[in-house]
Amino acid sequence: MSDRLASEIAAIAREIDARFDLLLTPPEDSRRPLYEAMRHAAIGGGKRLRPLLVSASSRLFAVDPECALRVGLAIEAVHVYSLVHDDLPAMDDDDMRRGKPTVHKAYDEATAILVGDGLQALAFEIIGSEATHPDPFVRCELVTALAAAAGPAGMVGGQAMDMAAPSLVQDLGIVTRLQQLKTGALIAFSVEAAAILGRVPAEGRARLRGYAHDLGLAFQIADDLLDVEGDAVATGKAVGKDEAAGKATFVSLLGVERARAQAKLLSEQAIGHLSGFGAEADLLRDIAAYTVRRDR
Amino acid sequence: MSDRLASEIAAIAREIDARFDLLLTPPEDSRRPLYEAMRHAAIGGGKRLRPLLVSASSRLFAVDPECALRVGLAIEAVHVYSLVHDDLPAMDDDDMRRGKPTVHKAYDEATAILVGDGLQALAFEIIGSEATHPDPFVRCELVTALAAAAGPAGMVGGQAMDMAAPSLVQDLGIVTRLQQLKTGALIAFSVEAAAILGRVPAEGRARLRGYAHDLGLAFQIADDLLDVEGDAVATGKAVGKDEAAGKATFVSLLGVERARAQAKLLSEQAIGHLSGFGAEADLLRDIAAYTVRRDR
Repeated sequence: MSDRLASEIAAIAREIDARFDLLLTPPEDSRRPLYEAMRHAAIGGGKRLRPLLVSASSRLFAVDPECALRVGLAIEAVHVYSLVHDDLPAMDDDDMRRGKPTVHKAYDEATAILVGDGLQALAFEIIGSEATHPDPFVRCELVTALAAAAGPAGMVGGQAMDMAAPSLVQDLGIVTRLQQLKTGALIAFSVEAAAILGRVPAEGRARLRGYAHDLGLAFQIADDLLDVEGDAVATGKAVGKDEAAGKATFVSLLGVERARAQAKLLSEQAIGHLSGFGAEADLLRDIAAYTVRRDR
Repeated sequence: MSDRLASEIAAIAREIDARFDLLLTPPEDSRRPLYEAMRHAAIGGGKRLRPLLVSASSRLFAVDPECALRVGLAIEAVHVYSLVHDDLPAMDDDDMRRGKPTVHKAYDEATAILVGDGLQALAFEIIGSEATHPDPFVRCELVTALAAAAGPAGMVGGQAMDMAAPSLVQDLGIVTRLQQLKTGALIAFSVEAAAILGRVPAEGRARLRGYAHDLGLAFQIADDLLDVEGDAVATGKAVGKDEAAGKATFVSLLGVERARAQAKLLSEQAIGHLSGFGAEADLLRDIAAYTVRRDR
């Protein structure tokens, strides 16, 4: 990883942790375990890829870094809630996440359900509030776009497809569509949000959309490769789970070598979409290059 | 129930069903079971109290009925999601809801988790969209107020208190606070939303807030009475569960007679807050009177 990228990641992680810390101060009543479990889930750990993407994309349009950070925080709240629910016994049944016990292991299932529900509500409270952007048109567009990316036409829809996946034909088109919803929609919104914050009209967002599309797929293929090649210490969660579950992944469909080549191609394509931008897009280029590195 | 109230309830129920029907058209892919389960949860059944409250309160401020309906739809989406998650085995573990099998019984637990998650996102997509109100300031205020009412400072916080409740002192103050968060916050927002839609400044909302506060508590006491006195056919769900779980309720703390008297008093107090309004508040008066009727 470049020093520049490493220092950007560290700075975003510090900011996100500090803001969650402030928002999730436990109250002096019996909601305390709920807040503590929300803190367990939201603070410390994770690459904070989505806030980093909002921040990096926002530099293309001279967006106030504070606005970008608040949008990144809201997206991260949605991402974290989806991990907490995804880890539940009825879903992927995972014991470890980001190197810590999952929320239902550290607390209990009911708490984990409520932690996810509460974090989703918090995300919309953050993104809709005046501190996120002075223009209410911008805030409303952020709210509806985040809701669409998170809901049944986006992330939740992709998770539902994933639940149905073992019974599906092992088909690259279906796996691609599933991943475009499950992880792609929120990654795409992270980049699109910068254009919304910068009041870039819809027709001016094509290159950025192309970048997000290719980056999202590259990221997912790299994730599938890590599930096969990585170890639990480095990834902070159990590995080899997709294969054990008989799930079709990019690696099971393409094999390791072709999957790696495809991820590299997509990463280069993502960077290609940025050719019209100058040094202000360097951080986005670094992110795309890093996404497919084996050691990430 | 008065004929007027009965016909208003029927009209709202028809509108809410028709709109969920349209929004939840199953797509032609493997997300179909998710959408069908969302329809199972959201369409048909329920008193639609919250949309009715938005609609009734909106008449005080000459709000466009279409705006009120869309806000009611969003609140109902949040309410329905909370029921689906609340019924899960790790939470209240209920088999029946609104006279039908609960979502995790009719489908499975993973689907029920995703149904709730998807309905919450949908709620914010509905309430934030331009069709809900032409003024983006109004939409943003609706978004952040709904998020606050639904999140850890509102409904989810109340549910967390409820989970912790058996270990609490049997204390009327704590049960009141719990219920004000668990059901009161969303009921209060249903009434407050009308003031937001009507651009009534915060200082002009005091009487309406008083109405919502008293109505919310009256409604909860009546619900506790139904859990003791009602039967499963009339309520569409299992009864006697609070007592079996050893949970403190208004009835366990006050006894049946005092609880009934308290509900009646609160209902009268709620109606008292409306004394400054004329016939345009009659529907709100009917709702308060009906809330504490035994046959509801």
